[in-house]
Parts: sequence; C-alpha cells; structure tokens
Amino acid sequence: MKAVLFDDALRVSHDHPVPDVPSGWARIRVKLAGICQTDLEITKGYLGFRGVLGHEFVGEVEQCADPAWRGRRVVGEINAACGACDWCARGLGRHCPNRTTLGIAGLDGCMADFCVLPVANLLEVPAAISDERAVLVEPLSAACEILEQQPLKGHERIVVLGDGRLGLLCAWVLSTVAQDVTLVGHHPEKLVLAPWRGLRTCAHAEDVKPGADVVVEATGSGSGLALAMALCRPRGTIVLKSTVASPGAINLAPVVIHEMTVRGSRCGRFKDGLALMQKHPDMPLERLITAQRPIDEALNAFEQAGSGKALKVLLRINP
Amino acid sequence: MKAVLFDDALRVSHDHPVPDVPSGWARIRVKLAGICQTDLEITKGYLGFRGVLGHEFVGEVEQCADPAWRGRRVVGEINAACGACDWCARGLGRHCPNRTTLGIAGLDGCMADFCVLPVANLLEVPAAISDERAVLVEPLSAACEILEQQPLKGHERIVVLGDGRLGLLCAWVLSTVAQDVTLVGHHPEKLVLAPWRGLRTCAHAEDVKPGADVVVEATGSGSGLALAMALCRPRGTIVLKSTVASPGAINLAPVVIHEMTVRGSRCGRFKDGLALMQKHPDMPLERLITAQRPIDEALNAFEQAGSGKALKVLLRINP
Repeated sequence: MKAVLFDDALRVSHDHPVPDVPSGWARIRVKLAGICQTDLEITKGYLGFRGVLGHEFVGEVEQCADPAWRGRRVVGEINAACGACDWCARGLGRHCPNRTTLGIAGLDGCMADFCVLPVANLLEVPAAISDERAVLVEPLSAACEILEQQPLKGHERIVVLGDGRLGLLCAWVLSTVAQDVTLVGHHPEKLVLAPWRGLRTCAHAEDVKPGADVVVEATGSGSGLALAMALCRPRGTIVLKSTVASPGAINLAPVVIHEMTVRGSRCGRFKDGLALMQKHPDMPLERLITAQRPIDEALNAFEQAGSGKALKVLLRINP
Repeated sequence: MKAVLFDDALRVSHDHPVPDVPSGWARIRVKLAGICQTDLEITKGYLGFRGVLGHEFVGEVEQCADPAWRGRRVVGEINAACGACDWCARGLGRHCPNRTTLGIAGLDGCMADFCVLPVANLLEVPAAISDERAVLVEPLSAACEILEQQPLKGHERIVVLGDGRLGLLCAWVLSTVAQDVTLVGHHPEKLVLAPWRGLRTCAHAEDVKPGADVVVEATGSGSGLALAMALCRPRGTIVLKSTVASPGAINLAPVVIHEMTVRGSRCGRFKDGLALMQKHPDMPLERLITAQRPIDEALNAFEQAGSGKALKVLLRINP
C-alpha cells in the first residue's frame, strides 16, 4: 500500500505492507489525513518516532471482527490504551502509561491506504459532517479539552495567544460558551479567518487590556508564557497548549505572586469534538484547510504545512 | 524609636520617628519580629523597598481610635488594601492592586518599637498561643493558603520539596489533612526537625516514588520545578511556593503532555493560621526558631538568618 514514512528521511512508499488486524482492532481505509505540527516535529527528528506518520484522519472501516462496523465512516482516538490500568478505568486512556499512539509512538499512523486501531477507539461520523470537517476532529477535540479542564460560566474575559490552527480552534470553541474572547496573532492572513460569533482579533498584544480571566497560550513559541503572565489577572488561569521550551530563563514569580493557575492541556475526547461539530454546523472549520493534496505529493504538502503560511494541509488518500 | 532600616545598607537606627496613626489605623508596640526570606532579598537590593523592614510580628495595640483595641495582643495582615476595589470587595485584599505592604512596599515595617496597620488588619491572639508561636502566623498562613486553593480529600499522596521554613510549615499543614506526606530536603539538621503526625522525610529525591498527586515546590531554588514535574502524576497538581527564577531554559512540555496544574501560591489569611494553631497546639512550630536576638543585634541576626543553616531567627524588640 501507499504510505508516508519517516525513517531517516520523509518519503512516500508504494509497497508498504498492509497492517494486520489484531483481535479487538479494526482496519480502516483512510480517506483524508491531516498534517499536524507533531508530524512536522517528528520529521525534524524529535520524539524518536520511525514509521508511518499521521494521526488525524477520516476513513471507512474495511476489516473488523464485528461486521456491524464494516463500511462505517469513522474517526479514531489516537491513543491505543492498555485497558487494564487505573487511567483506563477512569476513562483517561489518553494518559495510560502503556499506550501506543497512532503515528507518534509505537504504532504506524494514518498517512497510508490503511491504518489499524482498537475498535474501542472508533467513533462513527454522522452523515451531516463532511470528510473535510471530520478530519479536523483531533485538533478540535484538543481545543475542547480546555472546557473539560476549566469549566466556564460564560462571563469570563478570555485571551487566546497564537493565530495558528490550534489558536483559531481554541478561540472558536471558547466562543461557544464565553462572550468576550480575543485572539491575538501576528499573521493578518490568519487573523482574517478568525471572526465568528463575536470573536475579536488583535494583531498587537500591547493593545490587549491586561487582567484577563483566562489566557490560552497556543503560540508554539517560547515567549508565549511570559506574555500570558502579563495579560492574566491575579488568581486567573493560563492554559498551556504549546509544548515548546522557553528559549531562556523564565521567571515564574508572577504566577506565585498573583497566584495564577497554569493548566497544561493536551488531547481531548473525540466525542466532545464530534458533538461540538454537530451542535455548531456554522463553526467555520473549513477556513483552516489551506490545501488538499494527493498522498503522492506528501513531501511538498509537508513543506507547505511547515512554511508558517499554511493552517491545515490535508492529504487525499482514498477520497 | 529603634528601627531596623534598609536604605542603601542595613542598619539599626535609634532615633527613627514614631509613626503617626492614620484614621482607621492602629499603632502597635512590637514584641517579637521574624526575619523572612523576603527581608533578606530586600537587603540584597531586590524589590526596591527602602525603609523599616519586617512584616512578621506579634505586639500590643498602643494607640487606636477604638479604645476596645488598646492593650490587646495582636498579629496583623500585612497588606493594607484600599477597601474600595473589586478584590477588596471579594475579601481578597491581599491581591488589591492599590495595596501597600508592611515592610515590603510603601509602608514601614515591624522591626521597630512601633508599626502601624489598619485596624481591619488586626487579629487578637488567643491567650493560649505564645508570642513565639504567634509571630509565625504569617508563614503558617502562607502554608494554609495551599488548602484554600487546593481542597484535599485526605487520600492524596503529597510530596513537599524543600526543608526550609516554608517547606516544613507546608508539610505540617498538609499533614493535618493528608495521610501520606513526604518532605524532601538536603539538610539533615532541618529534616530531623520535621517528623510530626506521620510526616515522612527523605534526603534524596531519587528515592521518592514518582506519581504524587500533589507536589509542593518550596525549595527556593530554580531547579525545584523540574523536579516537581518529574515527581507529579498526570493530571496532578504542582503548588509553586518559590518565586525564584529558573536559572536556565525550562521545558514545561511535561506540564502540557501530562496535563498538570501548576498553582502559584503566596500569602494566606491570618485567621486560617491562627485557627490552625488553636486546633493543633502540638504542631511543633517552636522547632523552627533557631535563635532570638535583641533588635540591637539585628545585623548579626540577618547574617545568621541568611546563612542557610538557620530556619527562623526572631528579633526581640519589646518582649
């Protein structure tokens, strides 16, 4: 089968073996796959992953012991959890210490004709949701994770730092519950895509009034946390979405003096992402899709995705 | 009056003017004052404060418009809040943006024969509490602040990093509600003072089992946060008590990946500290007092307090 591989370099293989289907798992014929920042980082040698890339997809179940699943259009939670540990028992398989992760750790990914996942990870995509929206469920769910961790009453003033994919998604998700959300970014061509439901944009952080109740750090840059501390009110919350290291010494004294809460936030539950898509069919997710390219053009597609100009680049695999 | 002053250097003045009493304030004759890390930092030129040092004290009200207060033995909240802003309205005067702070910002401190504070800041000390215990109410309340911010059920596994004054106090306070508390420190002469109520001590962080529910960072050293991240479980909480800057680049990726919550924690309510002293008369607070010295020996007392060997050094002023 065709597959986008990273071993020592990024390449497209045309004869990668079709994966076997373990008991309790399903094989999915992939329709669309998204290129994510994590994929770009893997191709720079971070994370140590070698194999088929990709963890954002929509596809159709091709093989599965349970015939009811066959032919269904699905998305899939990316962490294959052990199902036996305390985390799994609490429904937090995405923190299972024994997990493998699709295209990231110990499990071949979805940038291929086929990928495999536990049946327990699959969610059927409602007919009203297009492939182009469904493939965005992973980053949308990561944005929804903020609401799971930090319940909002709606009156909070919220600032989202970073106008990349994740920043836009966080701003849209937060706009579904809060009235006063401002997205701060440096890219006019991205900020122009943001307005929805009263969401405001701002190109200069110095124009943002300090004292926000919640600041979401999604810049992907090391200086974002310092800016978040400057904009957050005493006893406010900073949600950290970026995993980027600070470039130099960072002084967390403001967090202590003003008793801020810094909340690390990563993946979310796909069922939350799908539910949000159903509830808000007007959320302009399609604006995130900069380009769709056939899998054979994966190398160019990765280059485009990493250029800083693109938001989301999709690979068409079996459309 | 006698006063410990920091202008360009630390010195004891014998003819400092006795402070006037503004309307709604009281003048207190200071009995004992404690030397705190913040005082030491001020004398190194940090924080920009110039004037009479000190914010930890116990004393007797000497002058006050309300005669009922005169002669009472008191401690006093250190932040003189404006009483008019939103923070004050919420009972959080310690975050009031217009506040002055005793011996720290805009208000002469308590290392003097007399100091002044708003009457609203005063709390009478119950007779059962000695001067030596009462003078510790400020750091004890700072430790109590953790419980206000982070309610505990009691079953949590807690690790406190740092065997200084604040680390010991945090460990004792947490031991009043949790069964499994471990204090980690590098000073055998301080660790030996810690045991109370099943509190365990550990001289080597590598001997602590990772996966703690709550890790309190009270080392006062820049490397404490990295250790806290290594010891905290996914979705666990790190309480930051140290305001020290990280000495180099710090990678907060573990906070994001494991969705930890980092909670800055500073001052607490004195009424909580006093209540805890009354409820737990056996809490071995006196162990923290390394020395008591007359105010005339303040320079030597500061040197002793900053030596790294001492826990709490007190100044006897009008004992």
